[in-house]
This record gives sequence, structure tokens and C-alpha cells, in this order.
Amino acid sequence: MTHETRIKVRGYHLDLYSHVNNARYLEFLEESRWTFFEERGDLPWFLQSGLAMVVVNINIDYRYPATMGDELAIATSVKTISTRSAVLHQRVTLAGTDKVVAEADVTFVIFDAKQNKAVALESRLKELLQSMQDQ
Amino acid sequence: MTHETRIKVRGYHLDLYSHVNNARYLEFLEESRWTFFEERGDLPWFLQSGLAMVVVNINIDYRYPATMGDELAIATSVKTISTRSAVLHQRVTLAGTDKVVAEADVTFVIFDAKQNKAVALESRLKELLQSMQDQ
Amino acid sequence: MTHETRIKVRGYHLDLYSHVNNARYLEFLEESRWTFFEERGDLPWFLQSGLAMVVVNINIDYRYPATMGDELAIATSVKTISTRSAVLHQRVTLAGTDKVVAEADVTFVIFDAKQNKAVALESRLKELLQSMQDQ
Amino acid sequence: MTHETRIKVRGYHLDLYSHVNNARYLEFLEESRWTFFEERGDLPWFLQSGLAMVVVNINIDYRYPATMGDELAIATSVKTISTRSAVLHQRVTLAGTDKVVAEADVTFVIFDAKQNKAVALESRLKELLQSMQDQ
Repeated sequence: MTHETRIKVRGYHLDLYSHVNNARYLEFLEESRWTFFEERGDLPWFLQSGLAMVVVNINIDYRYPATMGDELAIATSVKTISTRSAVLHQRVTLAGTDKVVAEADVTFVIFDAKQNKAVALESRLKELLQSMQDQ
Repeated sequence: MTHETRIKVRGYHLDLYSHVNNARYLEFLEESRWTFFEERGDLPWFLQSGLAMVVVNINIDYRYPATMGDELAIATSVKTISTRSAVLHQRVTLAGTDKVVAEADVTFVIFDAKQNKAVALESRLKELLQSMQDQ
Repeated sequence: MTHETRIKVRGYHLDLYSHVNNARYLEFLEESRWTFFEERGDLPWFLQSGLAMVVVNINIDYRYPATMGDELAIATSVKTISTRSAVLHQRVTLAGTDKVVAEADVTFVIFDAKQNKAVALESRLKELLQSMQDQ
Repeated sequence: MTHETRIKVRGYHLDLYSHVNNARYLEFLEESRWTFFEERGDLPWFLQSGLAMVVVNINIDYRYPATMGDELAIATSVKTISTRSAVLHQRVTLAGTDKVVAEADVTFVIFDAKQNKAVALESRLKELLQSMQDQ
């Protein structure tokens, strides 16, 4: 099953046009990624490892304007794993419907603070990401 | 000359890794777009027209982590104008250098509240966007 | 029982010092007030009434710096109801402990868009607020 | 003269009611404090000193709702210096007018990361704060 996070749209999420502001969606996506790593991955190990997930690209489509009181369902899944980067797909819908609000590919690398560089996605890291793909 | 906005990185822009958070960059880009429309376009007319600029896609590369005290220069320009949408290119550098911090294509449509739909980019709107291309 | 909202501290909530930024707490408090009105009050009626809850003062003590991964419990209660304003008390603790992270009094008035002024807290409004006091 | 920072209200600063959101004002105040320390204080020394300015209380009155396109002038001054804490006063007006939008007292301590405690505001620190009082 695809991992899902729920967020309710509140007054402070909106902007000039009474719709969720486009920067705010990136916080919703980040919230969902932390929840995803917490529930599917091994967040305590990761946070203590000296490794950091560094986002290098976000490509986001805004399809439908969410507004006050809407409940959003954010589905997060591992889309591809390459040698040095991986892509998460994140899809925001109105909860309980198929209405797509926004959809994003988030490309990240794993950065090692000690080596001061991005590391290869192999052995434990690769297994971790593979295990997080839809179970 | 390409339009430029300057923003200084402050404590509240940073996140867990002491770098500017990726959602915050979208606020920096929006700030720059308003300034761009204010200085190059006709913002008062636009705000009173009942038209809204609705962002439908942002594709952003994060290239270099900006941190506390960095001064950012955000260059905004009209990249392409199509029949129903247009693309702005926004490039964030460390001010006074060629170091690229982030780079984005922002695709938008012009939405007419009265007609409740996106309008064609023709006549006055098209001229306005064309006039905003690098002068 | 006092109404409680839970929020988990994530990377994007932090700032320069790796603590939750003080502006962000005001979003946590607003989130909790919406939840409070949703669960204890009559939010749909309120949103359709043309009335708005307008915050006129926030007095917040920051007592302990919350950081990555902390789970916060935010207790919200009606403290006082006066003729024209009311005060909510909001208390943020580390969930499951007595450790107080922040504590605030939030004073608000009810503004009527049609009359373009703050209204007296009487009849239905007063009853609503009274009914929301710790049940 | 009192130190002043200018901020223009943009679409992403607004909320449900098309007014600047109350959490956002705290970012405006923080922005102004950094500018204040940069222009009146000795920010590079401070950032390298291992000392941190930790806000312990904010008491903010919201007096007038700022909205799209308003230019805000934020005046920041040292109000009082005590043995262990100091208070800044920050006043937000519509630029070029006396209209007060918001007004806050911000109480802070200076925290020494090495000693893991708030330090006394004496010698160099006290002189620095005194020198920042309206010049």
C-alpha cells in the first residue's frame, strides 16, 4: 500500500487568492516525507548516521486549488533508485476522492557530512530505499 | 537587463541542516515575481483587473546550499509565451558571484475570476508579457 | 478535559539554532485553535456566518527549546470572556511530560464583515464560547 | 534616530481573511532585528562568538490589518536592559503614516552555548546594547 499523510487546510495555509500557497505545498510534501521515513524507513538510525537527505530537484504540478477546510491526502512512494540519486513521487489529492490537487517528483541525494559529499546509494542505503517501495 | 531582487538569508529561513529550506525558496521566487511585475509590468492594473496569475508548474533545481548571512540575487525573466501559458525563468545566485544557488522554471496561466477560466495570452496581456522580456 | 492537539517537530520547523522558530509556534497555536473550534465549537456555522475571529494580542512565553523529532502537545482552553473580547490560553508541552515548551494568552474579538466592526460577545456567541470551556 | 526596516506586503504573507497572518508578523519582526543588529550592532562578532540571542517572551498587539501592497515600516529600539535580559520595542506602521499596524515588546536573553546558560548582560554585551539605543 502507498504511504499516506493527511493534512487539513487551515487559514494560515492560504494566500491572496484564498488558496493554499504554492510554497506551503512544499512544506506539506516535506511533512509527508518525514512521516514516510518514520513509518517505512529507519528515521532514528538515519538522523544519527551523519547522513542527510538533500533535495536537488522538485518538479511540481499544481492541478487544483485547495482551500479552507479541505482535507488533503498526500501519497508518497519511491519512484526510482539510481546510483547517486533517487526520486520520490508525491501526490496530493482531496481525501476520499480521486481529485488531484498537486503532484511532484522529488529528486534527492544522500549527503555524508563527514566525507562532505553525496554518497552512492548502495548496500544499507539502497536496501532501505528498496524496502520503502510500495509494500 | 535582467530584473533582479536581493534577499539576505536570515535565521528564520534556515532549517535542520542550517541551510535555506527548500519551501522557503518558493517564497523568495514569489517575492521576486511580485517585484518583477511591480517594476516591469503594470501591477496596479493587474490587481484590479480580476485576473490572477496562477502557477501551474514549478521545476526547481537546488544547486548550492545558501546559509546565514548570504546575500541572494534573484534574476527573473520571461522565458516563453504560449497561447494559454507562459514560463518565467528564475535564477538565484550568491550576489556578486556566478555561484548558482537555485534555478527554476515557473509556468503560469492567467485566470479570469469572472469567466472562471484561464484566458488566452493575447492582446494587452501578451503585449504586457512581451514588454517585460529582458529590456 | 482540556482540548489537545499533537504536532511533531520536523526539519522545516527549525531555524539557525536547530530549535523551533518563534514565528512557527504561532502557526502551531493557530492550528490548535482551528482544531479546537472544529471539535468543540461549531466551525461550519462560524465560517458561513460572515464572522471572523480576529486576534488582537498574543503574549507568549518561550520556556524550553523544542527540536527535531519532539512531539508537542498543545492544550487550548477559554480563559476569560469579556463584553467585547475573549482570551484563550494555549500551553505547549513535550507530549507525555509536564515540560512546558511555550505558553500563550491569545486575545481575540469577533469581527462582523457586514457591520464592519467587532461585535459584542453575547447570546449565541457567548454561549458557544462558554460551552467550549473545559468540559 | 530609530532604526527602520521596510517590508512590502505580498500575496504569500496573507491568509484566509486577506490580511497579513499573525505568525508572519513575527518573521517581519525577526527580519528587522537582524537588520538592526547588522546596522547598529556588531553582527559578525556576535555570530562568531558562540552567543545566541534567545527570545523568551513576545507581547504583540495587532492593531490594524495590513494587506496586499501595503508598505510596512518596522521601527526597532532597545527599550530596557536588565541584568539578565533586555527588551526590544518593535513598532510596525504603514510607511509614511502614523497608522500603527502592530506593536511588540520582545524580551530576550543572551545564551552562551559553551557554558550552556544565559549570561549576564555586562561589559561588552551591555555596552553593545547601550550603543544600539536610539542614537
